[in-house]
Amino acid sequence: MDALTYDEPTKAKKAILRKIEEQGEELAYLQRKARELGIPVLVVVEGLSAAGKGTIINQMIQPLDPRGFKVSCIASPNRDEQLRPFLWRFWRRTPSAERMAIFDRSWYRSLLDAKINGIISEADLKKAYADVRNFERQMRDGGTIILKFFLEISKKEQAIRLAALQSNPATAWRVSDAVLQRHGRYKDYQDAVEQMFKETDIEDQSPWIKIPSKSTKDATLKVLTKMVTALGKRVKEVKDGKPPLTASKRPSRPYFRNAPSLARADLSNNLSKEVYREMLGVRQRKIQDLHHEVYRLRIPVVIVYEGWDAGGKGGNIRRLTERMDPRGYEVIPISAPNDVEKVHHYLWRFWTEFPKAGHVTIFDRSWYGRVLVERVEGFCSETEWKQAYREINEMEENFRNFGTALVKFWVQIDQDEQLRRFEAREQNVRKKWKLNEEDWRNREKWKPYEDAVNEMFLRTHAPKAPWTIIEGNCKRFARIKALDVVIDAIETKIAEKSK
Amino acid sequence: MDALTYDEPTKAKKAILRKIEEQGEELAYLQRKARELGIPVLVVVEGLSAAGKGTIINQMIQPLDPRGFKVSCIASPNRDEQLRPFLWRFWRRTPSAERMAIFDRSWYRSLLDAKINGIISEADLKKAYADVRNFERQMRDGGTIILKFFLEISKKEQAIRLAALQSNPATAWRVSDAVLQRHGRYKDYQDAVEQMFKETDIEDQSPWIKIPSKSTKDATLKVLTKMVTALGKRVKEVKDGKPPLTASKRPSRPYFRNAPSLARADLSNNLSKEVYREMLGVRQRKIQDLHHEVYRLRIPVVIVYEGWDAGGKGGNIRRLTERMDPRGYEVIPISAPNDVEKVHHYLWRFWTEFPKAGHVTIFDRSWYGRVLVERVEGFCSETEWKQAYREINEMEENFRNFGTALVKFWVQIDQDEQLRRFEAREQNVRKKWKLNEEDWRNREKWKPYEDAVNEMFLRTHAPKAPWTIIEGNCKRFARIKALDVVIDAIETKIAEKSK
Repeated sequence: MDALTYDEPTKAKKAILRKIEEQGEELAYLQRKARELGIPVLVVVEGLSAAGKGTIINQMIQPLDPRGFKVSCIASPNRDEQLRPFLWRFWRRTPSAERMAIFDRSWYRSLLDAKINGIISEADLKKAYADVRNFERQMRDGGTIILKFFLEISKKEQAIRLAALQSNPATAWRVSDAVLQRHGRYKDYQDAVEQMFKETDIEDQSPWIKIPSKSTKDATLKVLTKMVTALGKRVKEVKDGKPPLTASKRPSRPYFRNAPSLARADLSNNLSKEVYREMLGVRQRKIQDLHHEVYRLRIPVVIVYEGWDAGGKGGNIRRLTERMDPRGYEVIPISAPNDVEKVHHYLWRFWTEFPKAGHVTIFDRSWYGRVLVERVEGFCSETEWKQAYREINEMEENFRNFGTALVKFWVQIDQDEQLRRFEAREQNVRKKWKLNEEDWRNREKWKPYEDAVNEMFLRTHAPKAPWTIIEGNCKRFARIKALDVVIDAIETKIAEKSK
Repeated sequence: MDALTYDEPTKAKKAILRKIEEQGEELAYLQRKARELGIPVLVVVEGLSAAGKGTIINQMIQPLDPRGFKVSCIASPNRDEQLRPFLWRFWRRTPSAERMAIFDRSWYRSLLDAKINGIISEADLKKAYADVRNFERQMRDGGTIILKFFLEISKKEQAIRLAALQSNPATAWRVSDAVLQRHGRYKDYQDAVEQMFKETDIEDQSPWIKIPSKSTKDATLKVLTKMVTALGKRVKEVKDGKPPLTASKRPSRPYFRNAPSLARADLSNNLSKEVYREMLGVRQRKIQDLHHEVYRLRIPVVIVYEGWDAGGKGGNIRRLTERMDPRGYEVIPISAPNDVEKVHHYLWRFWTEFPKAGHVTIFDRSWYGRVLVERVEGFCSETEWKQAYREINEMEENFRNFGTALVKFWVQIDQDEQLRRFEAREQNVRKKWKLNEEDWRNREKWKPYEDAVNEMFLRTHAPKAPWTIIEGNCKRFARIKALDVVIDAIETKIAEKSK
């Protein structure tokens, strides 16, 4: 392998080493600038065995400030990852605005291997590439620079490098049978790679950059130069006041038919204490049994609670979970993002909380905050919340395609009922903490919130991810209805799985 | 199983349900107070099969604010966990000051199973219990309330409950062969549990609380009451201005013999460019080969760099890693903790970064910040940095017992050299960012820092975790020396492992 060396260099070697050093310094400078400006950077390094991915990545990170990057090595998914949707383990590792994320192999290698080993159908592969395109578009629209390098190596060169690895006792073990098999199927891999380029080489978003890997020094210089160019361009754009987002130009999805609407909610629904107590017991025992089935059949369950302040979400969730096994469910309360969440893509914290297959995750508020509170309070730009509908639909589609039982609740109360509850909280020492200035302020924006809620219904009430309005003026009614909807959703999935 | 029910309750039942509700409300109130006051709470729920751990935990969390707790279910360690020291997976889950950590089974169950299955020697078990005691003491000294519940169940009651689970189609699968085997070995478990009590029932720190589990309602009430008492006591203490730490009363370790001292460092060491270049190439190739061996033999390597500002740590690390495979090493730069780290035990972020066996982690600054910058700048109390020596020694002992190659560097320069480098940085546009006001301020505290460094050497230069001073006035010399020390440490471990 033509590696960098510190033996007495020739003149030509010296010249290229100097250029590599210059580009490295420039990259280190731009990395700091990108960090200051909050620009996330995602770098993918792919290539067949012995193409020199490790060496190139090491050359790439040498000049960088270690505070500013993180290398993720992608091997076969572990058990935890197998129990989540395909993109989960990659979402977890997406870059924050403070750290460049460098992928040594990525979602692409996983798909190439799946194809070569015949464990994915052509139709599913097409679908997976579409998911990848959406994923990269979401990253880009979130302001991320995406650089995808493919290190090219000929079959002959691959043979030479594998032989070199085998001849060194320290590295011989790395040339495993699997590596040799891949070498034998070089042509199949080349074909699969061509398909990959065709599906995912997206100009202005995430183009592939092919790098001949014969000379490590030339490859290093080319990679560094491409990175310097891309970072330099974006740093200048942001400094010039261009918005950090390259907004998606595609139109938003059409409205979904039959979406619910707040005006149509019948808040007079109502249950007496006696009827309620009996209905509750029956349903809680049912949920308890279903929870075991869900675990046994490895069905992931995601339940979203949205609704007005004091709508009764907390008490509703408590009744839902009261008899569940705490080993198998978790309630994730969503409030303002903390400073780690703030520097990531807004969907990052929701992806990372996706339950293991067989577990139940209940979001007390959710990703819909983007098109509700963030929209109404101006915490994100109009472009951002408008493109969020599509991003959310895509994320939920990913969840559903993984076999998830997905339930989305809007707990509805009217303004009079909210006022009654606010006042009752003020009277009660034990509950006073639940109420703050912000609740009163939000109350004054009832109308803009109502508009945002109705638009959210229209744009995200997908046939397989429908919204359910829980009429909440009577808490007892609301609890029974929520239990019924969850039971129904789980039973439907169980029936599908047992077919 | 005597579970809570919503059928028409009797008078006695009503009374106990009311008490449970009262204690639950009180606990919810105290949980919020504890959170406001920054008191972490760690709850362990242990017990043999069918003792009702899940039910009790669910009763415990029902009244709580979901923002304020996290349930961790401990099963067999996964691959990632097996490649780390025993306590790693528990450290990762220790409570922050914002969230109560509830363990459904814990380090105890792991040790009980290991004993029963004969996969741990009595000597190693004793050692493991000592580690557990240290771990719990560190938690307690960090201000954490520890509550350890053991749910007692008789063999007869266990048989009844297992039969009930088997008779329900939804739960029958839970009664696995392993569960039945454990039931068959009830007596062995009881003996192992007795030993566990003897080893880890520590008054004023982490006592065991035994709970008869025959009646779920009685058990629930008892657990809630104990929690209310413990939280109430601590909340009052903290409000009364008692320091949040229950400082360990045991004396600190004696000074280690043969500890290095800054005064003895010979800063005249020096290498010419030509000699350096040749030595560097040889050593980098050596490291490259050793890195493969380290991976093959699954040796974890931890390298700590401490030293003065502008001492040359960054450049030194770069030369060390230049030829390493980026898939197998990571540089962790340590600066002020972010807001997630701030609410955890100060050792938490270092434990979580412990490398997988076979990988190399280089800390650019480290846990020693506690006894250096935090001590000198007053970021922690005197009690805190004084007890840190012991805590650090214990942590490093954990690392070493796991087979870790541990190297600790202090990169030394003198004041004149530092001044020269600061001034050179000011002149260089590309390097100016490396220098800030704080660097100049720290420089004025040279003497207190020197004292802290020397005391750190004396108190943490353990025979198997020695400090090495890297004389850094000549950067070339420093780089070669660091490489030599790392090579030697790795070769020693490889020799041990290959025996």
